[in-house]
Amino acid sequence: MSEVLSSTVASIQPIDAEAVAAAEAAQAGLAKPAGALGVLETLSLQLSGIAGTCPPPVPVKPAVGVFAGDHGVLAQGVTPWPSDITFVMCNVFQAGGAGINVLARAAGASVTVVDMGVAGPFTEGTGAGATLVSKKVRPGTSDLAKGAAMSRDEAVQALEAGIAVAQQLIDDGADLLITGDMGIGNTTPSAALIAALTGTPADVVTGRGTGIDDDTLALKTSVVAGAVERIAPDADGVDVLAEVGGFEHAGIAGFVLGAAARRVPVILDGVIAGSAALVAQKIAPEVVGYCIAGHRSFEPGHRIALEALGLRPLLELDLRLGEGTGAALAAPIVQASARVLTEMATLESVMAGGE
Amino acid sequence: MSEVLSSTVASIQPIDAEAVAAAEAAQAGLAKPAGALGVLETLSLQLSGIAGTCPPPVPVKPAVGVFAGDHGVLAQGVTPWPSDITFVMCNVFQAGGAGINVLARAAGASVTVVDMGVAGPFTEGTGAGATLVSKKVRPGTSDLAKGAAMSRDEAVQALEAGIAVAQQLIDDGADLLITGDMGIGNTTPSAALIAALTGTPADVVTGRGTGIDDDTLALKTSVVAGAVERIAPDADGVDVLAEVGGFEHAGIAGFVLGAAARRVPVILDGVIAGSAALVAQKIAPEVVGYCIAGHRSFEPGHRIALEALGLRPLLELDLRLGEGTGAALAAPIVQASARVLTEMATLESVMAGGE
Repeated sequence: MSEVLSSTVASIQPIDAEAVAAAEAAQAGLAKPAGALGVLETLSLQLSGIAGTCPPPVPVKPAVGVFAGDHGVLAQGVTPWPSDITFVMCNVFQAGGAGINVLARAAGASVTVVDMGVAGPFTEGTGAGATLVSKKVRPGTSDLAKGAAMSRDEAVQALEAGIAVAQQLIDDGADLLITGDMGIGNTTPSAALIAALTGTPADVVTGRGTGIDDDTLALKTSVVAGAVERIAPDADGVDVLAEVGGFEHAGIAGFVLGAAARRVPVILDGVIAGSAALVAQKIAPEVVGYCIAGHRSFEPGHRIALEALGLRPLLELDLRLGEGTGAALAAPIVQASARVLTEMATLESVMAGGE
Repeated sequence: MSEVLSSTVASIQPIDAEAVAAAEAAQAGLAKPAGALGVLETLSLQLSGIAGTCPPPVPVKPAVGVFAGDHGVLAQGVTPWPSDITFVMCNVFQAGGAGINVLARAAGASVTVVDMGVAGPFTEGTGAGATLVSKKVRPGTSDLAKGAAMSRDEAVQALEAGIAVAQQLIDDGADLLITGDMGIGNTTPSAALIAALTGTPADVVTGRGTGIDDDTLALKTSVVAGAVERIAPDADGVDVLAEVGGFEHAGIAGFVLGAAARRVPVILDGVIAGSAALVAQKIAPEVVGYCIAGHRSFEPGHRIALEALGLRPLLELDLRLGEGTGAALAAPIVQASARVLTEMATLESVMAGGE
């Protein structure tokens, strides 16, 4: 590991158990039956642990990082969509007309598109919908059906790019990070990462992505199975990522590590984020304490990934768009959970007539 | 039925099939794979049908109506909580320190507390957290274990009070109504309404509310079963409501009817709202087209009610507080679904480089 990655990993601490306990006690004293706010209560405990204080600050400046990349594995025919769409959609993000632009605006979140390895050429800059940042490692990964998707050095470079994006957004005031992704074909490396990092068979974790037929699904599954077989039993997180991942997966894994290192909560989007979070967890197990699962997507591997991470999704609305849409949609729930601890009256004050 | 109720029922039309079809076509043309926004897409179709136009207006002024009442059935010992809490909590709502105040503020929604039949004495007025409106029918229902909870005239009066509250909020600019409730013991009439209106056995729909032991649950179940047995097979919605309902259930049923009559969407909260919506559906079947299930609560009858209504809940976060909390938490999702249709770029414009 290079210095940025290793120092980031070293600075990731477990969430603060004392603040969690204080939040638990505070919840028990609020003017409602114990546990009646369900997941909002557990979320408020987590936010307290992340911030190291109770009540936790209410996140007011969410920021979406949409990590984009292309995939050599498209040569195998794992998806009917052309890789050009990755480039096209990044331009739509910048202009402001994509699903994530709409849902980020609704959540009051900024959008930063990060070119991790898109085949097309970008110019950095800010459009009506997003700021585009170039962290291009290479214009697309190698075909993971034939060998490693990227070198170990490239994987580290991509992880550190994700860390840098998280740090920059936090330096600019972001207090709640949201993961997003764009990359035609990226459910294939996601399935491979989930299979490799959870020990689940390829046919269980491989799904239809944005829509493929039975023959393509069989092909995609065999590609995933073959790639996972190459991974050595003692491979570390960076090895697994390099062998079967994507540049956007690496960027997201770094983004999550960067958020945790700065004690900022991060909402994970769908299956791509779930697979990237498994990489981050393999590199730094405590990172999961800083992660919130925004939603569960239709993709079968996502359920496996969330179980392995021990995360319960906030939403299950059959979204399968990616881009960060499911995570952005969940942001108001995260904010509301912090407000409960900050703003609700206590039973004691109610009984004293103080309200 | 008296004139207000009958004219309201008469003015409830099916949602507009042409606008739904237009929304379906519009969704198919957006810059994303078909169906990739899941429930957000179906919700946008429903909002279009409710408004009778595509895209539908984005709701910007949500309003929570918290209907409160006390229950004679408390004499049976169906809950360990004293009925005084209903009055106390209404004062907390007005002061602004309750769960619904926090979540309504988070959603940018106003809160109106409606005294439908609270045992304590209120003065109408506006506090920091809510406006209190008096529509008191009587200070608590009769014991539904011994006979009808209210007379048929009282049921109509309470339904019309709910209609009036909906109309007033809409006249004041509300474009998205949210149901809330407060009433110690009100899961007992809810279970009875659900059992009666869906033909489900009492032991399936009766739950632990805010927390009761096994003996109390057995008692509560037998109270529900006994009350439901009195209902004649040809009873209409008002009859069922009068026999086993509560004043707040009646208010919410009227609120839902009032929203539908004015073609305004209404987000239902938990099991109390679910049971009240069944009453509204019995009175005017088309009303369900205007209803959105904000969440599914822990209470077992809620699942039965939602299935009978044909509604899929937006959230499943183990909330069981009532007050409108689960519905208010879902409001941003409803708003986001309308924004998708309004703000997303079309595939055509993207392919033409127009974005």
